[in-house]
Amino acid sequence: MRMALQLAAVARGRTSPNPMVGAVLVKEGRIIGFGAHLQAGKPHAEIHALQMAGEDAAGSTLYVTLEPCAHYGKTPPCANALVQARIRRAVIAMKDPFPLVAGKGIEILRHAGILVEVGLLAEEAQALNRNFLHYVEKKRPFVTLKLAASLDGWIATKEKQPLALTSYEALVETHRLRNEVDGIIVGVNTILSDDPQLTVRMVENGRNPVRFIFDRHLRIPLHAKVVTDGQAHTVVFCGPDADALRAAHLVDAGVEVVRLLHTDSLAMIHEALTHMGENGARHVMLEGGSTLAYAFLGARAIDEVWLFHAPKLLMTGWPAFVKGDPETTSVLPLVLENITRRSVGVDELTIGTPVWNNP
Amino acid sequence: MRMALQLAAVARGRTSPNPMVGAVLVKEGRIIGFGAHLQAGKPHAEIHALQMAGEDAAGSTLYVTLEPCAHYGKTPPCANALVQARIRRAVIAMKDPFPLVAGKGIEILRHAGILVEVGLLAEEAQALNRNFLHYVEKKRPFVTLKLAASLDGWIATKEKQPLALTSYEALVETHRLRNEVDGIIVGVNTILSDDPQLTVRMVENGRNPVRFIFDRHLRIPLHAKVVTDGQAHTVVFCGPDADALRAAHLVDAGVEVVRLLHTDSLAMIHEALTHMGENGARHVMLEGGSTLAYAFLGARAIDEVWLFHAPKLLMTGWPAFVKGDPETTSVLPLVLENITRRSVGVDELTIGTPVWNNP
Repeated sequence: MRMALQLAAVARGRTSPNPMVGAVLVKEGRIIGFGAHLQAGKPHAEIHALQMAGEDAAGSTLYVTLEPCAHYGKTPPCANALVQARIRRAVIAMKDPFPLVAGKGIEILRHAGILVEVGLLAEEAQALNRNFLHYVEKKRPFVTLKLAASLDGWIATKEKQPLALTSYEALVETHRLRNEVDGIIVGVNTILSDDPQLTVRMVENGRNPVRFIFDRHLRIPLHAKVVTDGQAHTVVFCGPDADALRAAHLVDAGVEVVRLLHTDSLAMIHEALTHMGENGARHVMLEGGSTLAYAFLGARAIDEVWLFHAPKLLMTGWPAFVKGDPETTSVLPLVLENITRRSVGVDELTIGTPVWNNP
Repeated sequence: MRMALQLAAVARGRTSPNPMVGAVLVKEGRIIGFGAHLQAGKPHAEIHALQMAGEDAAGSTLYVTLEPCAHYGKTPPCANALVQARIRRAVIAMKDPFPLVAGKGIEILRHAGILVEVGLLAEEAQALNRNFLHYVEKKRPFVTLKLAASLDGWIATKEKQPLALTSYEALVETHRLRNEVDGIIVGVNTILSDDPQLTVRMVENGRNPVRFIFDRHLRIPLHAKVVTDGQAHTVVFCGPDADALRAAHLVDAGVEVVRLLHTDSLAMIHEALTHMGENGARHVMLEGGSTLAYAFLGARAIDEVWLFHAPKLLMTGWPAFVKGDPETTSVLPLVLENITRRSVGVDELTIGTPVWNNP
């Protein structure tokens, strides 16, 4: 099962909206086949393993990190294929909570006389598919807020002058995270002040996530890099009253403009996240700026915080969170739990998950 | 020598203005005497070791963490006592940079025919007496700035409401540091808003450092705990124009009032630090508040930063540094080096030393 988990993880960041799955077939103490789900629409892990095993699959034991599917999606149900291949036993790390499966795969196997055990390394399997499970439960992608600050909490100088706050290693780490997520979210002010590319550049075989820009009034310039560079799909979320001509120009430039129905930040954020999820995003990363970060926290739409601390004191500067609209829900001091810390170059990376006290 | 260094360290925080020193006498492979300098005015390490060895000292080897003294201070010179005891050899970790010694001790020993070696574990010996060496070089005590902040850098809520930001373990660690320093520095605003005791409470056999209050206009109330509790000596630094009657009341209450000549923050800080040093302080700790911390950084009078980060986000609040007087020197982004980090309860303690770029 450990091997199955490792196989599953090779496709990290590449299977959305599907979960990562790994499978290993064992017979008489020998591995006779293995596979992983590598991309949505492509065969599932079990099918790769069965193909590798061929006729030998009959009488074998399957180790698989997630319950085999029972429904016709982009591919036919794996449970049926396993029955057809006449495997003897299936060891499954965890049930699939996806409503179209949710125990039905196990039922099919058991009905065909296959011995089924569920729960081996279940915790590891759940951690592996955190984003997928989060979506099934919350109907929106898992959101990671990424920050880089001085020890005294400032993310830039007061005048927002460009400032190399964190190390080269922290930059590489950020690009690694970009490479794993389905989308990067920024506010239009970040585009206006920094004109970032928001692409994956410091990782081998990286692929660029979708760029999501929150831009209520469509202030994004047509010459912004995210509009012109053609490096990744760009989606701009605007308010219901945003100028139609500006929207048309952006669409002409290849940008997807999504006009939200809501006007207050909280509802806009949830509407936009629902849209991202429906279009397959399971893990997105919020990279700035301060007002958007505050609004996301107010909307309780942050599931994990990545904070790089550079070993510097700025004394004064631009804060990580700025309250924008007065209607933004006020946020109480927020406790982070499941804290992990590690050195990244000279910087320190703290990762934690917010505890929302009053649900 | 390792043993000598360990013996020296038992008196940490208790020997100021003197350095910590440990000594071990060895003869024919046996330890025949050892000692440490335990308190200023009390015998030096070498004397304790000689007394323990008695007649056996003749022909022995001395391991000592600092050059034996050559001058009559509160005790007679150790170098002479070692000559009299007819030791054969002296292994010394480091020369004493104190001008009245500075090689003279070694000279006395060599002149008497004692074999002298210098430099064994010199780095460890220097680290041991960092505060003493700092004073010899800079003529002011070593200053540790201690801060406790949220991950996003706020040290309190905007309204400075009491807030248990860091953990119990961080509090214990702060009291341990208090137990090692000669003085705690705070600004009068900290007294006015928190009325702290600034004593050592969570450490066994703790002793209270001197409480130094920066209070330009003598706004400290006579009912403040640091005035009334009698737990430790309290020194109030005021400006040249502070009210004489208020000063008299404070003196009546047992407080030492030091009227500084200077009026601008930078010069006041250096004048006050010089006063502390002349009165024996070798290591002091700045505990607040934000304006005083900013002024100390402006005066380049911070030698080490201790920053506890609680795993919380406050979003907004009171910053660690607040520019007070317009005349305060503006401080550039400050890089910290020699960074060490460790977990203290759920919090993270970062320790670093500021790099002053333009001396």
